[in-house]
Amino acid sequence: MVAFGGNALLRAGQKGTYREQLDNVEQTCAQLRHLLERGYNLVIGHGNGPQVGNVMLQHEAGRQLFGLAAMPMDFCGAETQGSIAYLIETGMDRVLRKAGIDRKVVSLVTRVEVPADDPGFTHPTKPVGPYYTEAEARALMQDGSVYREDPRGRGWRKVVASPKPVAIRNIDLVEQLARAGYIVVTVGGGGIPVVRTEAGLSGVEAVIDKDLASALAAITMKADEFYILTDVPKVYIHFHQPGEQALDTLTVAQAKQYLADGEFAEGSMAPKVRAGILFVENGGKECIITEAGQLDNPACGTRIIP
Amino acid sequence: MVAFGGNALLRAGQKGTYREQLDNVEQTCAQLRHLLERGYNLVIGHGNGPQVGNVMLQHEAGRQLFGLAAMPMDFCGAETQGSIAYLIETGMDRVLRKAGIDRKVVSLVTRVEVPADDPGFTHPTKPVGPYYTEAEARALMQDGSVYREDPRGRGWRKVVASPKPVAIRNIDLVEQLARAGYIVVTVGGGGIPVVRTEAGLSGVEAVIDKDLASALAAITMKADEFYILTDVPKVYIHFHQPGEQALDTLTVAQAKQYLADGEFAEGSMAPKVRAGILFVENGGKECIITEAGQLDNPACGTRIIP
Repeated sequence: MVAFGGNALLRAGQKGTYREQLDNVEQTCAQLRHLLERGYNLVIGHGNGPQVGNVMLQHEAGRQLFGLAAMPMDFCGAETQGSIAYLIETGMDRVLRKAGIDRKVVSLVTRVEVPADDPGFTHPTKPVGPYYTEAEARALMQDGSVYREDPRGRGWRKVVASPKPVAIRNIDLVEQLARAGYIVVTVGGGGIPVVRTEAGLSGVEAVIDKDLASALAAITMKADEFYILTDVPKVYIHFHQPGEQALDTLTVAQAKQYLADGEFAEGSMAPKVRAGILFVENGGKECIITEAGQLDNPACGTRIIP
Repeated sequence: MVAFGGNALLRAGQKGTYREQLDNVEQTCAQLRHLLERGYNLVIGHGNGPQVGNVMLQHEAGRQLFGLAAMPMDFCGAETQGSIAYLIETGMDRVLRKAGIDRKVVSLVTRVEVPADDPGFTHPTKPVGPYYTEAEARALMQDGSVYREDPRGRGWRKVVASPKPVAIRNIDLVEQLARAGYIVVTVGGGGIPVVRTEAGLSGVEAVIDKDLASALAAITMKADEFYILTDVPKVYIHFHQPGEQALDTLTVAQAKQYLADGEFAEGSMAPKVRAGILFVENGGKECIITEAGQLDNPACGTRIIP
């Protein structure tokens, strides 16, 4: 199981054109090739932060300019699952073709179940989407959604829950396909969040951490290894401080201690380390946190081990 | 194999809110239940006309209001595959749950190969997306895309190819899943159009007729029957004219004659009849053209037969 962020495809400082995103995805897939060449079966989970942000802006712009219905976040997330999977399929096919590797890619639209009683649904904290004026935000709150003023004064912004994933739809099929040799793209953007209701699974506005969703996928499929790709080659303690130290291995006990000590930044390395711990505590052999460019080295990155 | 239009989900006169589209899709799925209860394996192909039109408007609005990159049509189509599949999965799950039917739904992002030398790529004719002023259109044409003035004077509009689908990626897997009992959603919007290039399959801006793509899927999977759902219960000759007659069956020879006689409107019934002929001429038993509301009757609709 490999997870990478939406910013591996739409990078900071880029406008995010089709060409840019396709080039970025092809570069990432070229690195994943090393795993395929070592004989791995491969399941890809990806983030969608910058992409779903853009989609929400586009919906808002479409509402303002053309009177179109702006859709809720679960719908926007489903849109990014389609578009990002399409980019990954295109980039991966090119890489496979160039390398002469005979593997097929298949992408599943993926709903992920979250608990209906997650406290985030009553007290949401994760800001998403466009900034609004206070008046606009108060009008938008009529439908029950929650907006908060940005602490840096950029305006009002919707806040949603960030619930824990508890089950992934069709994950048994993902496992079956991966073990049959397919490269499978799933849990895009952490998955489309749904909750159990009387009528069935219903979409909710929320953001599922893509590393947690990918960890859950890896655990459920009994994956041997779980790679979390980021923009640094290893996990560090005293990061960007005197005595900075790159870690080759990290036991679960050490990882928990460093987390408690605040060594890993929230919204950045901390959730990745937590996802790694979750995987290793639930039967995984090791979780490797590294950058895509290191994958040619089988001993790359920081390994979280039991 | 069942194909239905994007307008089964986003109906004329509706704003296309989430709630409306979800209600519409649930109604359609409730009718498809009759096929499941008769023991069919089921593959669903769907259109995306109104949805991809909205996405293109949203991209244009996002460009104007927020300076976001407007993405090409293949990317927009991929977005609608994600969102529409999500709606279908939600609606179908509810119907299955209510009916106590134990079947799973799985949705694949689907690329469909079209010939790189389709004449439509040099002489595109299919209008898509927003209307522009002549000056805007001429500026947008710098990237090689083609815009034409609307004959009804509403402005300038992009025109793209509408090439014939020649191969569907992962259709072998779709067949395998359907025969294993999964309800499979595929070829959304006719599929994401791609052409073979030196580097691999590359996306192109084009619209693949969803009935033709679904017919190709049905043929490749050796489906027994191919249902095309529309907004009338049967195919008619002298439609809306004196002597109007609903047809119960239509041989391929009759269908071709009526097409030649101009009995079926282009952009409406004619492409459906052509897709039905294609299916039956390539091994299909029968193609049934009807409306979703008739599916409780096993003898519904007009049957195109050899």
